[in-house]
Amino acid sequence: MEDIPALARGCAVLGTGGGGDVRTGALAARRAMETYGEVPLVRLADLPEDALVVPLSGIGAPTVGHEMIYGEDEPRRVVEEVERIFGRPPTAIMSSEIGGSNGVAPVAWAAQLGLPLLDADGMGRAFPEVQMISMHVAGLPADLVIMSDIVGNVVTIRPIDGLWSERLARAVCVAAGSHALMADYILTAAQARGAVIEGTVTRALEVGRSTEGAAEPLAALQRELGAARLITGKLTDVERRTTGGFVRGTATIEGTGDDRGRTLRLELQNENLVAIEDGEVRAMVPDLITVVDTETAGAIQTESLRYGQRVAVLAWPCDPLWRTPKGLETAGPRAFGYDLEYVPVEESVKEESRG
Amino acid sequence: MEDIPALARGCAVLGTGGGGDVRTGALAARRAMETYGEVPLVRLADLPEDALVVPLSGIGAPTVGHEMIYGEDEPRRVVEEVERIFGRPPTAIMSSEIGGSNGVAPVAWAAQLGLPLLDADGMGRAFPEVQMISMHVAGLPADLVIMSDIVGNVVTIRPIDGLWSERLARAVCVAAGSHALMADYILTAAQARGAVIEGTVTRALEVGRSTEGAAEPLAALQRELGAARLITGKLTDVERRTTGGFVRGTATIEGTGDDRGRTLRLELQNENLVAIEDGEVRAMVPDLITVVDTETAGAIQTESLRYGQRVAVLAWPCDPLWRTPKGLETAGPRAFGYDLEYVPVEESVKEESRG
Repeated sequence: MEDIPALARGCAVLGTGGGGDVRTGALAARRAMETYGEVPLVRLADLPEDALVVPLSGIGAPTVGHEMIYGEDEPRRVVEEVERIFGRPPTAIMSSEIGGSNGVAPVAWAAQLGLPLLDADGMGRAFPEVQMISMHVAGLPADLVIMSDIVGNVVTIRPIDGLWSERLARAVCVAAGSHALMADYILTAAQARGAVIEGTVTRALEVGRSTEGAAEPLAALQRELGAARLITGKLTDVERRTTGGFVRGTATIEGTGDDRGRTLRLELQNENLVAIEDGEVRAMVPDLITVVDTETAGAIQTESLRYGQRVAVLAWPCDPLWRTPKGLETAGPRAFGYDLEYVPVEESVKEESRG
Repeated sequence: MEDIPALARGCAVLGTGGGGDVRTGALAARRAMETYGEVPLVRLADLPEDALVVPLSGIGAPTVGHEMIYGEDEPRRVVEEVERIFGRPPTAIMSSEIGGSNGVAPVAWAAQLGLPLLDADGMGRAFPEVQMISMHVAGLPADLVIMSDIVGNVVTIRPIDGLWSERLARAVCVAAGSHALMADYILTAAQARGAVIEGTVTRALEVGRSTEGAAEPLAALQRELGAARLITGKLTDVERRTTGGFVRGTATIEGTGDDRGRTLRLELQNENLVAIEDGEVRAMVPDLITVVDTETAGAIQTESLRYGQRVAVLAWPCDPLWRTPKGLETAGPRAFGYDLEYVPVEESVKEESRG
């Protein structure tokens, strides 16, 4: 895990709101590795069946996380509680969501704990709510959440289901200053098979490296992702508010160049959820929608969207797990309150190019 | 513990807002004893040093608790978590606050659990915030809170101090529908000596019995409590709102009879905090202030205050523990945001009668 800048770039593309600024996470990762040493990346196949894997993520509103300093003690306090409950220490930690800061910060947490990082995550992207995770789709029970905040409080939740997990964790998060470290769906390597999305740390590194030294970074990124470009243009309107631990709002992009005369509106809840043009949905969750700088192809996180930015909006398919009935029930458009039938981005974009 | 009606009347006098309607608590206590049998009342001196005592209380806004049904499973879930953490079952349960429903409902919880009830509590009255408890004043750490809600979620908080305990517990309570069962300051009998207020269940029973068959119930209650009567009159204005898990507001009583021409205003936060007449404070926390019906001397809980009620306002001294510097820091007027120097009710009432 040496190429933190590439990892951070890749994670930023895979999630635009998760747990704070990727630069903060990258800084924490580099510092922790300087102090505590290298973090080995391990594959699930390398772990013994009963190895305990602790998925970790920062939970909070990104506009708060942006300015938040990661403490050094939160991972230790979470692991102390894990040991108290399971009677043994964890073997590896895992990123709960590879997208955004939560894909990078686990390198810091792993370094601080002296544990390897599993090459996997629970989303293959980022989602704003804690029950939107592959372990839930795989049918593992959401029966234990451990949270640790920067002042030193530790909260253990034994929820009856994922929705209560989200509701209670969010309430604790807001009370703790809108930011906390969370362990969710702690599981053995045996349980993790088929219940986590493997190879996503490596994938984020590949995405991050794709633009390195490229003559046309945007084209290189688009190729690496297999993404459609929904629009190229200028950000003309951004409306954002932080409520109940989430950032919600809309961003409007007016086309320039070949796209002159077109307008795309993005609806946000930490992540870009839906892209709409002329009343037609062009892409929607759980597929990925990311706003990138037209020059550098660097992803622009939700909290950094500003009037006047020159951007392209890319959209590409999510992990197949999210397209199963349980996956769509968990993180499809209806899970976010949109009365929309899910249409895969490959189709909605094809229809559009037909029209 | 047979005289539930007397206990309920006494608890209502000792606290007007704690954890819901005393009638609901009394009903739950009677039903639980019918199903599970008698609840023995034990004294602290009867318990072995290492006996584990679990203080329990309902936490929530009384206007919600009023309509809330107590579940049967919350005490069991809390005790399961206690056993998981301490590695042994509890010996007795205790009421965290004797005032209000939280003084009566523990009889139900003890019956359901098949455990005795300790003749003690943590307040000798009721207070709206969870850190306002004798164990905190005695210097015991607020390092563990276990909460259980009616849907079945269990939350364990390891807070850094009592204020964080309050903040996080309240947030969980609000997320759980503004009502939950809570175990706080779980302690051994050895730790409990000097850290709990003993004999308060017996005291509540005495207070409840004092008006039974009395020719002048109000005078009998006043005598039993050693209380001053601040005013006798009519409730002319009640303003209440539920925010952040609390009921806050004011109640205005206009004097009748001998008190004609006088007006007393009560400030409320679940409990009656301060009594003011002509800009002068006549009684204040941590001393007790209770509104009672002039005919029956039955206490009127905060959520039942209504325009037109004929009432007397009684005020009497709190347990000496609350008058220590740490006691006043914890639950004196400043702890509630009032810029007032504490004056014991015996003095403020004396001054008044002088004037």
